[in-house]
Amino acid sequence: MKLFRPFNVVVDFETGNLTPGKKITRYLSDIQHFFLDKEKVKAVLAKENPLVYEVIYAEVPEEPGHLAHCTTIIYPGKVGNEFFFTKGHLHEKLETAEIYFTLKGQGRLIMASPDGEECEVLEMFPGSASYIPPSWSHRSVNVGGEPLIFYCIFFADAGHDYATIDKTGFPKVVLERNGEVVVENNPNWKKA
Amino acid sequence: MKLFRPFNVVVDFETGNLTPGKKITRYLSDIQHFFLDKEKVKAVLAKENPLVYEVIYAEVPEEPGHLAHCTTIIYPGKVGNEFFFTKGHLHEKLETAEIYFTLKGQGRLIMASPDGEECEVLEMFPGSASYIPPSWSHRSVNVGGEPLIFYCIFFADAGHDYATIDKTGFPKVVLERNGEVVVENNPNWKKA
Repeated sequence: MKLFRPFNVVVDFETGNLTPGKKITRYLSDIQHFFLDKEKVKAVLAKENPLVYEVIYAEVPEEPGHLAHCTTIIYPGKVGNEFFFTKGHLHEKLETAEIYFTLKGQGRLIMASPDGEECEVLEMFPGSASYIPPSWSHRSVNVGGEPLIFYCIFFADAGHDYATIDKTGFPKVVLERNGEVVVENNPNWKKA
Repeated sequence: MKLFRPFNVVVDFETGNLTPGKKITRYLSDIQHFFLDKEKVKAVLAKENPLVYEVIYAEVPEEPGHLAHCTTIIYPGKVGNEFFFTKGHLHEKLETAEIYFTLKGQGRLIMASPDGEECEVLEMFPGSASYIPPSWSHRSVNVGGEPLIFYCIFFADAGHDYATIDKTGFPKVVLERNGEVVVENNPNWKKA
């Protein structure tokens, strides 16, 4: 049996930085097709391409028995009245759970069953540990005025299935209406 | 496929309370045989039986694909010059990792290979996410003056093997010498 060595990474509760870590960045152009208001997306992108979110991964073998962990930082912002969100995904190894432990900010976590017939939305706030059970797709949304920062833990061999979400979207959207955060059905959602 | 429902638990960063959760408590009498100074243990227990640590578990099925999570609160204290610690364990499903994400306090995380020949000690401090790789036994130690609070994530079907540690102990101990935290070899350690 080959022993993998213990190690620390350090998470900054204020900025979400994880050190040492490997960062990926997602700009509006990367996830533009998920937003409801296509005209507003075009108008924003004509002027700028805002950074929507970053994920910073600790380096762990993508093998059975290991746990992957990362921080996610979703910046505050909207396209029209729709809050910034992550692309969202299912796990390739579908029946594996994930946990989002929120460190800062205010959010919503949209989860759907593989066929999209079941959908649940949890609130995210400092100290909330949200349990994404096996098989649920998941997308998080920043509904506040500061970065939404959370620490994520999942099976290191779970893999990411983004293709399904590319086709279906999520059954619900999170919008601002009259200064309130509201969850509504997504008119563009397609059954898997 | 039976769908398990998403849920939130809430972690208090200051107290370590996890709600709703199931708490277990460990008093000095429960772990007395691990301390080096047997006379000092007797002397303390003749007067009181201090609470050494608490673990508060979120309720999750102990099944493959699920992630267990809990908070651990180790109270500040010593027996002689040896800092309070958790009992420590291996996983029954040995080759499964665990993560300790420290929220408050100062600690040390002692880890050993199954045969005890390899031992590593990591520092725990607010923001440290300590990776306990598959197969390493693990014990945490509060070396500060306030509670050491950390959030733990592990495979829900990993199980706990306390019996091995009961027999062997850990290869290292964490002591205070002249106001400094020192790590020394455990003279009572027995090879597995």
